[in-house]
Amino acid sequence: MFKINDNYLKLPGSYLFSTIGKKVREYKAANPDRNVISLGIGDVTLPLAPTVIEAMHGAVDEMASADTFKGYAPDLGYEFLRQAIVDNDYKARGADIAIDEIFVSDGAKSDSGNIGDIFSVDNKIAVCDPVYPVYVDTNAMAGRTGDYIEAEQKWSNVIYMPCTAATNFAPEIPKETPDIIYLCFPNNPTGSTITKDELQKWVDYALKVGAVIIYDAAYEAYISEDDVPHSIYECEGAKACAIEIRSYSKNAGFTGTRLGYTVVPKELKSGETTLNSLWARRHGTKFNGAPYIIQKAGAAIYTEEGKKQTKEMVGYYMQNAKYIRDELAAAGYTVSGGVNAPYIWLKTPDNMTSWQFFDNLLENANVVGTPGSGFGPSGEGYFRLTAFGSHENTKEAIERIKRL
Amino acid sequence: MFKINDNYLKLPGSYLFSTIGKKVREYKAANPDRNVISLGIGDVTLPLAPTVIEAMHGAVDEMASADTFKGYAPDLGYEFLRQAIVDNDYKARGADIAIDEIFVSDGAKSDSGNIGDIFSVDNKIAVCDPVYPVYVDTNAMAGRTGDYIEAEQKWSNVIYMPCTAATNFAPEIPKETPDIIYLCFPNNPTGSTITKDELQKWVDYALKVGAVIIYDAAYEAYISEDDVPHSIYECEGAKACAIEIRSYSKNAGFTGTRLGYTVVPKELKSGETTLNSLWARRHGTKFNGAPYIIQKAGAAIYTEEGKKQTKEMVGYYMQNAKYIRDELAAAGYTVSGGVNAPYIWLKTPDNMTSWQFFDNLLENANVVGTPGSGFGPSGEGYFRLTAFGSHENTKEAIERIKRL
Repeated sequence: MFKINDNYLKLPGSYLFSTIGKKVREYKAANPDRNVISLGIGDVTLPLAPTVIEAMHGAVDEMASADTFKGYAPDLGYEFLRQAIVDNDYKARGADIAIDEIFVSDGAKSDSGNIGDIFSVDNKIAVCDPVYPVYVDTNAMAGRTGDYIEAEQKWSNVIYMPCTAATNFAPEIPKETPDIIYLCFPNNPTGSTITKDELQKWVDYALKVGAVIIYDAAYEAYISEDDVPHSIYECEGAKACAIEIRSYSKNAGFTGTRLGYTVVPKELKSGETTLNSLWARRHGTKFNGAPYIIQKAGAAIYTEEGKKQTKEMVGYYMQNAKYIRDELAAAGYTVSGGVNAPYIWLKTPDNMTSWQFFDNLLENANVVGTPGSGFGPSGEGYFRLTAFGSHENTKEAIERIKRL
Repeated sequence: MFKINDNYLKLPGSYLFSTIGKKVREYKAANPDRNVISLGIGDVTLPLAPTVIEAMHGAVDEMASADTFKGYAPDLGYEFLRQAIVDNDYKARGADIAIDEIFVSDGAKSDSGNIGDIFSVDNKIAVCDPVYPVYVDTNAMAGRTGDYIEAEQKWSNVIYMPCTAATNFAPEIPKETPDIIYLCFPNNPTGSTITKDELQKWVDYALKVGAVIIYDAAYEAYISEDDVPHSIYECEGAKACAIEIRSYSKNAGFTGTRLGYTVVPKELKSGETTLNSLWARRHGTKFNGAPYIIQKAGAAIYTEEGKKQTKEMVGYYMQNAKYIRDELAAAGYTVSGGVNAPYIWLKTPDNMTSWQFFDNLLENANVVGTPGSGFGPSGEGYFRLTAFGSHENTKEAIERIKRL
């Protein structure tokens, strides 16, 4: 008799964004006349950059002719893309990453979920609280998190690092020593960041205790301040303790186009075994590459035109971020984030819970955001708004919130 | 101190096709003047169908405009694609599959590797021998296969079902009862098939012993005989015991385009838990959908023009299959497969081992095939040739083999 993975049964409710999607669909079905604006799920709205579109048309044409047709891609991804990554995302920032340390994938969500495969079940993870749910849920599925304690909204075998107003929404080195540390800067959901000096302390700590850092840098393109690192490999020693995950979803609007990559440096070892060899094995056995057309689209981001166009895209969203932050602050809300990240982290007014504020906003302002408590217990009483709407919708949404 | 997944260290050598790729690259580097023809890795060579190309250009254009831009896709895949699947791949074959039992993915390799996530480590798998390596390797990575016994080229905790000339290259119900049974028909690598009546016996057996069948139907488009089932759901009771994995790689040439799907019927349960809900949870948490552009390409396959064009593509390859089979048989080789599948399974001459024949073919005929032993111990003494080359290359390769 076959047996299921019982760890799945321990997961509370459904994936956060599925729950939100369902609530919104139900509200819209019941109120078809209402114009609901979403500043909720971190989905982008601007079309792809012209250079990217052009590259994709070109790649589609290549697939139409036997001479230029492309079948299975190289295991790690096409060299034209990996070389562009090495040169632009690393060499240009003083980080020495080799082309065979880059693994092109279908996105940061898959990678941040799948990376757990190469680690033993017997590892204790540390996560920020609040946190992007995928890190915790995928570790729960793997049986690494113990049991879910409903009353605390916490897993029994996870080290939570509270990121609250008291810590300026940054994590502090935990008292208990973790084996795997998930860090995400600029942070989702709080929009907070830490400086390079602060990140260096995490690298030093990981090296000291033999922990590995899973560093999610999906929002690096939104960094506007000079002392905030774009990659963990800007820190000394990081190649011996950190895996970095990158996404094209937010910097180039690839949420529906699906492309990302993960860096696993060869210096990162357990005994004599490099994690690079383990991830290469997983990548080659359980994945068959991102589509050629999409990898060509990714490479186009790194051309001069591509860089210019995606920078404009990021600039557009950051105008929204500034607008949301400034307007809500002026209206008396307590806000943070939005300076180096497309997320604004908002304290709910009148001691509302996060979900109360969600329902209030959906029903009375027809605006969708994300309840902070969905990201972890320390997110309770907070709310995430994203800068990924159009200027018009963002303005309209904020006007509606101010009228609440 | 972090701990790696030690199961990875038990894996012998590298993934079969990576090893072949390396050997071929080295030979080509040492012999740059030789024209090496590959009938090895199951990669296609014909360009994508015109209708598919047109659909992709259209979808790329949609991504260029804010009005038609697509961000994150629905968790299970776009309805336009899933509905086409339901109607064409199932309803048309008398199988009643619901739209929310279809999960669109980036391909059958990912799905057949990832499906193990929803099962406990404590399940005993049964596989055909020879077999597509991904089933075994991914179970080994999950710790489900025991230890690798080098001398036998077998895992200690796997039930092997020999598919040999004696069994007409089909598996027989194993003596020991498995929990999870991997079946692939038309078969990779042997090209063999079984009739609907024979498949019904497997379904009945699985229902009787409480096993689940992972049914890989990636090659169903190559079926030419009437009594061979295209889907396991043509068999009575299969929805209560089988998961089916489908690919667009071979029927529509999507090896570098990446699209597939998996069917998890809601009748398939462990106690009260549907496997559909578990896979939905995995799909929604560790995956973020196939690109919109690629899903539109997939839907184009199901249009009248798309069906006609992909059928021609399959017909082209099947001409190769017939040619390889007939010519090698006439030259005295013992061959099977190639009637309902794009693979020809060849007995190596002169008692050569599979790898000896591989080296002989590469060095003396400059033709690349796949050693049967790479698919399992019962594949020793056999060799797989694929029909995915051009007519010209296939003809040239076979001439060279005949001259050996």
